[in-house]
Amino acid sequence: MQPPKSKRLFTPGPLTTSHTVKEAMLVDMGSRDDEFIAIVRDIRRQLLALGGASQAQGYEAVLIQGSGTFGIESVLSSAIPPQGKLLILVNGAYGERMVQIATRHQIPTEVLRWAENQVTDPAAVQAKLAQDPAITHVAVVHCETTTGILNPVLEIGKLVRAAGRTFFVDAMSSFGAIPLSLIEAQIDYLVSSANKCIEGVPGFSFALVRKERLETCKGQARTVSLDLFEQWRGLEANGQFRFTPPTHTLLAFAQALRELDAEGGVAGRAKRYQANHTALVSGMTALGFKRYLSPEHQTWIITAFHYPGDPAFQFEEFYRRLAERGMVIYPGKLGQVACFRIGNIGRLTVTDIQELVEAVAAVLKSMKVTLPVAAP
Amino acid sequence: MQPPKSKRLFTPGPLTTSHTVKEAMLVDMGSRDDEFIAIVRDIRRQLLALGGASQAQGYEAVLIQGSGTFGIESVLSSAIPPQGKLLILVNGAYGERMVQIATRHQIPTEVLRWAENQVTDPAAVQAKLAQDPAITHVAVVHCETTTGILNPVLEIGKLVRAAGRTFFVDAMSSFGAIPLSLIEAQIDYLVSSANKCIEGVPGFSFALVRKERLETCKGQARTVSLDLFEQWRGLEANGQFRFTPPTHTLLAFAQALRELDAEGGVAGRAKRYQANHTALVSGMTALGFKRYLSPEHQTWIITAFHYPGDPAFQFEEFYRRLAERGMVIYPGKLGQVACFRIGNIGRLTVTDIQELVEAVAAVLKSMKVTLPVAAP
Repeated sequence: MQPPKSKRLFTPGPLTTSHTVKEAMLVDMGSRDDEFIAIVRDIRRQLLALGGASQAQGYEAVLIQGSGTFGIESVLSSAIPPQGKLLILVNGAYGERMVQIATRHQIPTEVLRWAENQVTDPAAVQAKLAQDPAITHVAVVHCETTTGILNPVLEIGKLVRAAGRTFFVDAMSSFGAIPLSLIEAQIDYLVSSANKCIEGVPGFSFALVRKERLETCKGQARTVSLDLFEQWRGLEANGQFRFTPPTHTLLAFAQALRELDAEGGVAGRAKRYQANHTALVSGMTALGFKRYLSPEHQTWIITAFHYPGDPAFQFEEFYRRLAERGMVIYPGKLGQVACFRIGNIGRLTVTDIQELVEAVAAVLKSMKVTLPVAAP
Repeated sequence: MQPPKSKRLFTPGPLTTSHTVKEAMLVDMGSRDDEFIAIVRDIRRQLLALGGASQAQGYEAVLIQGSGTFGIESVLSSAIPPQGKLLILVNGAYGERMVQIATRHQIPTEVLRWAENQVTDPAAVQAKLAQDPAITHVAVVHCETTTGILNPVLEIGKLVRAAGRTFFVDAMSSFGAIPLSLIEAQIDYLVSSANKCIEGVPGFSFALVRKERLETCKGQARTVSLDLFEQWRGLEANGQFRFTPPTHTLLAFAQALRELDAEGGVAGRAKRYQANHTALVSGMTALGFKRYLSPEHQTWIITAFHYPGDPAFQFEEFYRRLAERGMVIYPGKLGQVACFRIGNIGRLTVTDIQELVEAVAAVLKSMKVTLPVAAP
């Protein structure tokens, strides 16, 4: 059977994945099958390796069903003891989501906020930790998918460790394509998802954790399904998930990891995404679009562009006409500023990006939207 | 590419699914795409129809990421108010799991327990409700996957409604293959999973809920990811999941629903599973195996068999030798009695069951296990 044609997804997820990743799902496998257990074990080992760590170095990988938010909630609701206090650094919607989760679980929380186009400031974190000794955990987003901004996780990690606190990083949209060493950045808990830069299909997230921290989570979780310690203990005891795992999604992920390796690992993938990003910015700038972020804060994961000033521009119509051409972009998620977003991640190349830019030009023309001519 | 060969899964899940269900996953679809939103809307409508209900009759379908346990936890941790009290009827491991979830969320709970080979008794429930007016909610498992026993949901539902309490049914392993009307059984909340009798792939569960109950859940959930009300509100507001959905799994499920319909819906599927069950019991009985349950309590979903008395029988070895022949069975989950289980659900026919029985005979012979000759 000829597979139906997929649209190209220029989004932060679900992403365009390779046909071979999807084909890996054409098998039904028992969740207690030796072959499946070996695949899960391999996935866990490879995830740690992508973070520059290993079990021998005292790190563990735990797979958690559900979207990235499930992984974040699993860690926050399992890791912080009743007498703990969490400091959350916020410069976008995913920082705010951690605040929402902590609040829901009645975890005492302090929040430091920055504008969505400003990076989180290590000096402010250091001052806050010095001032409030009750804070036990610090959480930050590595690359805020809201804008594509990169936060200084390395600097923050070092000072959090020096201050004797536990460090949690939401690396949802960066892990696998922006180099990050768990050890160097002194990360205790890192969470990411199957369907971001590793280019699997959506269905689970994962936590990479320092084992000595993980062991403190025993009996502490506020839920059963998202109990990080018990999920880890299950995987360690017999290699099995506690509850029916998304077997097909895991088979796709194993294939995605092989393809990441074939592309040269994190460095190779970063190179392709950087090329996508460069082509995108160059093409969109030539059309007259302005980026939301200053270039020095911008990653190659996703890029936010201001709406054109021309009142003939209507985002929903712009989105719809691009979708008709088989290209899916993403709305903005900013509090104040009207932006849309274009993702560079997933199985996309510079050719895809160039075709998107051409489609954007054609759609603007069809909508009679004009943009200021770009400065040379 | 020739798809790799799947083993046949005689289990309660993950199951054997059709090739066409798996092929439906060969597409990447954006989660905000109109086409995807229409598919999700259709899935929700069809699920209600399978339960003999509709939105017009005041019922709603909510899709929840994760395994069945995530769906159960979503409902229990969203539906029961702080001043509520839950009565759980237990005759197997999945009843006990509800106790575990309620306990984790510090929900005041009463438990009525029966032996694993006994059905839950409506008269005992009625007496308990009369005796304890603080009980607000009653929860029961329809078909306990532990044994395959069928609980009298219809009788219990009627008396729970008459007593003015809210009724919750875990219909995980029965929904889609054992007829059950939400309206007739007076069910307020029913939970099942994508990867049971509807024969989708694993990755999400769903709740079918009386809308007037669902509306009372607002602001009551104890988690963010599993907030049933907010998940529903998101689906109603713009047809989207709140968090990245398992798009491929949902596409597979839409195809699975088409195939269920083509088979004649719940009645047609029940017929095939009943034939599987009859062939299984007849074949295994002829080999000398004894069923754990009395026939009058037994469903056609899954069957528990006692281990043979012969000390040459070792379950792990028996399991391994069957798996080598491409057939996967399931261990027992009983407190006291040594049993294994064989599932009849998934894309299996009488021919598959007959081949399994032949393989069981051959493996027993290779292990030099003898069974008593069956009574004629």
